Amino acid sequence: MKPSIPKGTRDFGPVEMARRNYIFSTIRSVFALYGFSQIETPAMENLSTLMGKYGEEGDKLLFKILNSGDFLRGIDPELLSGAESQKLVSKICEKGLRYDLTVPFARFVVQHRNELQMPFKRFQIQPVWRADRPQKGRYREFYQCDADIVGSDSLINEIELIELVDEVFARLGINIIIKLNNRKVLSGIAELIGEPDKLTDITVAIDKIDKIGMENVKEELRGRGLPEQAIAALEPILAISGTTDERLSRLGTLLQASETGTLGVKELKEVIDGVKALGLRAELDLDVSLARGLNYYTGTIIEVKARDVAIGSITGGGRYDNLTGVFGMPGLSGVGISFGADRIYDVLNTLDLYPAESASATQIMFVNFGEAEAAASMRMLKTMRQAGIRGEIYPDAAKMKKQMGRADALNIPFVAIVGESEMQQGCLTLKNMATGQQQLVSPDEAIAIINESTRE
Amino acid sequence: MKPSIPKGTRDFGPVEMARRNYIFSTIRSVFALYGFSQIETPAMENLSTLMGKYGEEGDKLLFKILNSGDFLRGIDPELLSGAESQKLVSKICEKGLRYDLTVPFARFVVQHRNELQMPFKRFQIQPVWRADRPQKGRYREFYQCDADIVGSDSLINEIELIELVDEVFARLGINIIIKLNNRKVLSGIAELIGEPDKLTDITVAIDKIDKIGMENVKEELRGRGLPEQAIAALEPILAISGTTDERLSRLGTLLQASETGTLGVKELKEVIDGVKALGLRAELDLDVSLARGLNYYTGTIIEVKARDVAIGSITGGGRYDNLTGVFGMPGLSGVGISFGADRIYDVLNTLDLYPAESASATQIMFVNFGEAEAAASMRMLKTMRQAGIRGEIYPDAAKMKKQMGRADALNIPFVAIVGESEMQQGCLTLKNMATGQQQLVSPDEAIAIINESTRE
Repeated sequence: MKPSIPKGTRDFGPVEMARRNYIFSTIRSVFALYGFSQIETPAMENLSTLMGKYGEEGDKLLFKILNSGDFLRGIDPELLSGAESQKLVSKICEKGLRYDLTVPFARFVVQHRNELQMPFKRFQIQPVWRADRPQKGRYREFYQCDADIVGSDSLINEIELIELVDEVFARLGINIIIKLNNRKVLSGIAELIGEPDKLTDITVAIDKIDKIGMENVKEELRGRGLPEQAIAALEPILAISGTTDERLSRLGTLLQASETGTLGVKELKEVIDGVKALGLRAELDLDVSLARGLNYYTGTIIEVKARDVAIGSITGGGRYDNLTGVFGMPGLSGVGISFGADRIYDVLNTLDLYPAESASATQIMFVNFGEAEAAASMRMLKTMRQAGIRGEIYPDAAKMKKQMGRADALNIPFVAIVGESEMQQGCLTLKNMATGQQQLVSPDEAIAIINESTRE
Repeated sequence: MKPSIPKGTRDFGPVEMARRNYIFSTIRSVFALYGFSQIETPAMENLSTLMGKYGEEGDKLLFKILNSGDFLRGIDPELLSGAESQKLVSKICEKGLRYDLTVPFARFVVQHRNELQMPFKRFQIQPVWRADRPQKGRYREFYQCDADIVGSDSLINEIELIELVDEVFARLGINIIIKLNNRKVLSGIAELIGEPDKLTDITVAIDKIDKIGMENVKEELRGRGLPEQAIAALEPILAISGTTDERLSRLGTLLQASETGTLGVKELKEVIDGVKALGLRAELDLDVSLARGLNYYTGTIIEVKARDVAIGSITGGGRYDNLTGVFGMPGLSGVGISFGADRIYDVLNTLDLYPAESASATQIMFVNFGEAEAAASMRMLKTMRQAGIRGEIYPDAAKMKKQMGRADALNIPFVAIVGESEMQQGCLTLKNMATGQQQLVSPDEAIAIINESTRE
C-alpha cells in the first residue's frame, strides 16, 4: 500500500512552509499595521449557511460532510431506492466545508452583531475547499487572506486598503499594477448606451478585452444580442486613453448624462486623489473593463497584477452593499480585499524573491561524538538556545560524514564540534558551513558570531 | 433565519485570537529553538489512510466527506435499499477529515521518505476534527501542536523534548509537573507478577489510581480476572515512595528479575539524569501508574499537568517504534510530544496569565473631523505606520463621543486628535486613554511616546 493524498490537495514540507509562512506573516503584519483584527471561523459550516450563496455551480463545488452515526435512519425508502444523488444530499449531510471566507464572515457578523464594534475591521487567513477539477495552479484546498471593513461607507476605507495592498507587495518585493474601477461606472455605461438591463452581458464581454481584443469583444456583444448602435456607443468609452487623470476626466464627460455613472466617476476620483496624496509605490491604473464578480460589488472594484510575471490577478476586492442581507441584516456596507496566497507564492518562486534566511530555520547543529561529548554539547546548546539561537544536536553518535551530511542537506549554516579537547576547555570548534572556516570559541563567542552572520 | 455554526465548533473573535496566537507563537518559537521544522498536511485524507488507525470507536468518530457529483452512481441498488449506513459509507465517501496529526504525519513520512533527512524533526500545528459528543472543554474542531523526531532511538531525543516542554511552560508562566514512565517498566511489572498477557488490563486499572485509590484499583483488577497473588505482588510496586532517585532505585531492585523491566528502569534513569544535568524548572515525577494509550507507546511515556489548576493532562507524548509500519515502512522509531492548545488556553484564562499587550493590537486611533483633517491625519498615520506603529483612522466624521467610544471599547491605548490648529502646526494632540493625559506633539514624538509605553 503506497500512501497518497486526495487529488488537488498538497503536503507542505519544511522549505515550502518557511516560504508560505514568510508570505502569511508579511500579510498579517501589514493587516495589523492598518488596524485589522484577526478572527477565525470553523472549517465546517451548516450547509444552510453555504448553499445558494455561490450560484448553482458553487453549490455543486461544496464539499459536504456526511452526518455522523446512522445517517440513513428515517430516510424515506423511496428516496433511497430512487438513487438520485442530489435529492439525497440534504438528507444525509447537514454540514459542508467553507468555500471562501466571505460567507462565513457575513455569518459571523450577523451572529455576533451585538458584540462587535462598528466599523468592524477584521482579517482572516484560513484554508478554503472547493471540489473543482484540479489543474495547474488550482487546488481543492487553498488559503485565502482577506481583510474587510464593514459598517462604514466612507471612501477612506478604499484608500486605506489600496495603501495596505501597496505596502504588502512592497515588502514582498513584487512590482504591481493596481487596477481600479467602479461598479457605478459600469452601470452608467450600460445606461448610456441604452442597455441598462444588459449590464451583466456587457461586463462579462468587456472584462475579456485584455485577452481577446476589441473586435472579439464586439463580436461577443453582438452574440449576446446588443444592437450595433449600442456597440458603437460603447467603443469610444473603452478606447479612452491618456494618463489616469485624463481618462478620468474624459470618462466624466462621456458619462455626464448618467447620474449613477457620474457618481462612479466621482468616487473613483476621490479614491485616486486620496491615494496620490499619500503616495503609492505601485502603478495605479483606471480600467473601465474591470468587472470581477459584478453581482457582488456595488462600488469600487480593485484588482492587482504582477508586472513581471504573467499569472493573472494576485489580489482583488471591492465594495459591496449587502453582504449580510441574506442572513437577515440588511444595509451593511463594506469593502474588502483578498490576497491570493498560492499565486503570490508562484510569483515569488518565479522571481526568486525569498529572503535567504528563514526566521525559523535551524542555525547550528552540534556533532555527537558519544555520551560524554554529547552531554557537554547539550549544556552549551542550552546556553545558546537561552540566547535565542535555534539549534539541535545530532541524536546519535553516527559517523562524522553522516552527521555533516545532515547539516549540509538541511542548509544549517554552522556546525559545532565538541571533542575531548574542546570539552576540557569548555569550548567548541565552530565551523562555518559556507566558508569552511573553523575556529575554537566559547559558547558566548559562538552566539555572537551566529548573530552577526544573521545580521549581514 | 438566525445563523449559527455546527455544534462543537467555535468562532474565535479578535480577543480570543490574540490569546490563541500568543499560545501558538510561544510553542512555535520553542519548537524552532529546538531545531524542529514545520510541515502541514491537507485537512482531508483518503479514508484508506485514516480507517482502522484509531480503533473501532475512532472509525465512527471520523468526519467523512461525501464524494462529489453523482455519488450514488454505480452503487448496488440492493445495498441502497438495505439502508445500512455503515455498509454504504465506504461506497459514497473516499475522504475524511484528519482525526489527529500523528497518522497524517506517518503517511507524510512514508510518502516523502526519499526527500526527508533522517532523523526527521518536524512540528505541526493544525486543527483536527472528531465527531465526539460535544461537552465542556471537548470540541469537534480543535488544534493540536505536535513535535516528533523519527529515525533515531537515542534517548537524547527524550531529554530534548522534556527540556522543550519545560521551556514552553516557563515562557507561558504555567507551573507544571512532568510525569514520566516507560512502557517497558509496565511490561516488566506484568511479567513480574506472572501476568504478562494481562498487560492492558493491569495498565488500564492502575492508570486510575490517582482518581479512585488503591483499594478500588485492586477491586478492578479482581474484576478483570487477576489472581489475588498477582494483585498482592503489584501492591508494593505501586506503593513505592521517596524521592525520584529513591523510587527509581527501588523499582530497579523490584524489577531485576525482568529483563524488559530492567531496561525500562535503565532508560528512565538515563532520561532523568540527562534532564537533571541540564537543569529543569518543572517538577519531574516518576509515575509507574502512567500509561497513556499503551498500545501505541513502546518506551518513554510523558505527561504534563498544571500544578495550579485541576484540569487533567495539558501535554503528553512518548516513544513509539512502529509508527509507519502500517503504511509499509517498518522499524522506524520515533518520539513525540503533543501540546493541548485548548486546555492550555483554559489554564491561562483561569490563572489570568496573558500578557497585557498583544503583539498585534492596534496602538492608536485618529479621530476624524472631516475631509481636510482626515487627509492630514492620514499623512501622519502613514508616517507612524512606517515606524511600525499599528494604527487606524475612524473612517467617518462621526460624533466625537462615538469615535472615542470605539477607542475605548477596543482598548486602543492612544487617540490622536487633529483639528484645525493641529493641522496648521503639523502636529497632533495625543491622548493617553489610560491616564486621560493629552499633549500636543509631532508625529515623531508620538511614535517615541507610543514605543516607550509599549516597552514599560
